[in-house]
Amino acid sequence: MNENPTRTVFFISDGTGITAETLGHSLLAQFPEMRFKQVRLPFVDSVTKARDCATRIRTAGKEDGARPIVINSLVEPDVVAALRHADALFLDLFERFIEPLENELGQRSTHTVGRFHGIADSLDYKDRIEAINFTLAHDDGVSHAELEAADVILVGVSRSGKTPTSLYLAMQFGVKAANYPLIPEDFERNKLPTELHKYRRKLFGLTISPERLAQIRQERRPDSTYADLDNCRFEIDMAQRLMQREHIPWLDSTARSIEEISTKIMQDVHLNKRGY
Amino acid sequence: MNENPTRTVFFISDGTGITAETLGHSLLAQFPEMRFKQVRLPFVDSVTKARDCATRIRTAGKEDGARPIVINSLVEPDVVAALRHADALFLDLFERFIEPLENELGQRSTHTVGRFHGIADSLDYKDRIEAINFTLAHDDGVSHAELEAADVILVGVSRSGKTPTSLYLAMQFGVKAANYPLIPEDFERNKLPTELHKYRRKLFGLTISPERLAQIRQERRPDSTYADLDNCRFEIDMAQRLMQREHIPWLDSTARSIEEISTKIMQDVHLNKRGY
Repeated sequence: MNENPTRTVFFISDGTGITAETLGHSLLAQFPEMRFKQVRLPFVDSVTKARDCATRIRTAGKEDGARPIVINSLVEPDVVAALRHADALFLDLFERFIEPLENELGQRSTHTVGRFHGIADSLDYKDRIEAINFTLAHDDGVSHAELEAADVILVGVSRSGKTPTSLYLAMQFGVKAANYPLIPEDFERNKLPTELHKYRRKLFGLTISPERLAQIRQERRPDSTYADLDNCRFEIDMAQRLMQREHIPWLDSTARSIEEISTKIMQDVHLNKRGY
Repeated sequence: MNENPTRTVFFISDGTGITAETLGHSLLAQFPEMRFKQVRLPFVDSVTKARDCATRIRTAGKEDGARPIVINSLVEPDVVAALRHADALFLDLFERFIEPLENELGQRSTHTVGRFHGIADSLDYKDRIEAINFTLAHDDGVSHAELEAADVILVGVSRSGKTPTSLYLAMQFGVKAANYPLIPEDFERNKLPTELHKYRRKLFGLTISPERLAQIRQERRPDSTYADLDNCRFEIDMAQRLMQREHIPWLDSTARSIEEISTKIMQDVHLNKRGY
């Protein structure tokens, strides 16, 4: 008999379910010894669809031999009721958080948790799309045009994590993040690229361990000078000296996720987006 | 007297706070008539830092003339206790969700909600970074190499939303999303680009309203044929006919966010990432 059967976890929403899923991933990560099968069921906006979900929940419970877990952001009472015909542990975003908020604010909510309808028209959303386009146009130093409009400019040696971090900053926080490589020519001159001088206050550096960098570069260009460990050590050492001398704040990306790096950048450069 | 004073909302975490914030945005969107000032306080991993947070909460409460709202994913009891010295409405992810999960699973959690430490080493994370690199290398049809490895290939006219959607699919879901423009030459030949024939089952189309497309293109290349409304109408009409004849599923991106579009694509093409 298996003491820890696989549990199926459903993320259910009348919208994309991304809120329920983000919370769900954090919660499930708390139980590293359990095995979870995760199922996203978005756009459940009718009693009929909720009934189909209830059937899927029941089936999963039978197959697993343990009742499923449902993290849901549904709000329509009829839809919720149809869902609850299945046997499961229901973790309900609405019930747990909206009610205390309604009491606190003395206002009824609009009952649309999880719905992203209308978001595409919001200013926030337009900012994010604009930031993504800006970041793509200013990846890897390809364009110096409009660097004035950048909220932050990441610098660092090739493959130190600048591109995915820039994109995450744009996508999650609506930050216009350009990035600019530090290359051997800069180290020979021992100076920042000329284009960056006047944006010194927007610069943020990324560094990485030589071993990790050599590994990443090796996948790209096997057995090249570019990927050679000694060369990686040299480039990183020179880049760090340069950043230190120019008083550029920097961070080691080696053991950090793009979420962590981006959050630290937001904190350090006091980016004032969305009223933070 | 102001009946609806601005409320300050704090997202507090010992990690990035992105989970607390994602949930928070969904909840606050329920109260469109309220004005909120949002403050992210990440990496609160000591009693000292929690005391600083409590001071900030108190100050905000005085300034607003209303007690703040705190959405927090802290778990250390001492740290939580230090935070709770301030007067606020506390919405606590741990208390509300972890306890019922522990009871259900018959296991203690590792008490690390909100922490992203270690995520950079996970397989999921590596998949996401690999997907981002793949997507960037296969944006706008720039490379046909390794299209075999794509999970999905988005097609559509220029500026129909392919690029931000591809990046979101990669970043959020770890999906390798290539994208490929449908251009006037394709319409003249009235055929799919040759390179795409053998990947027909991976194709997903995006379309957009001619008015919105003309507006977006106008910002890029003012008063060009490219941005002309009649030309946009023609391109979209041809693209839709092509997709229909080739049995490519498609979606109108006009009033949808990249979150919505991406979720629908995940659903429609039955992408099996992360065990979904």
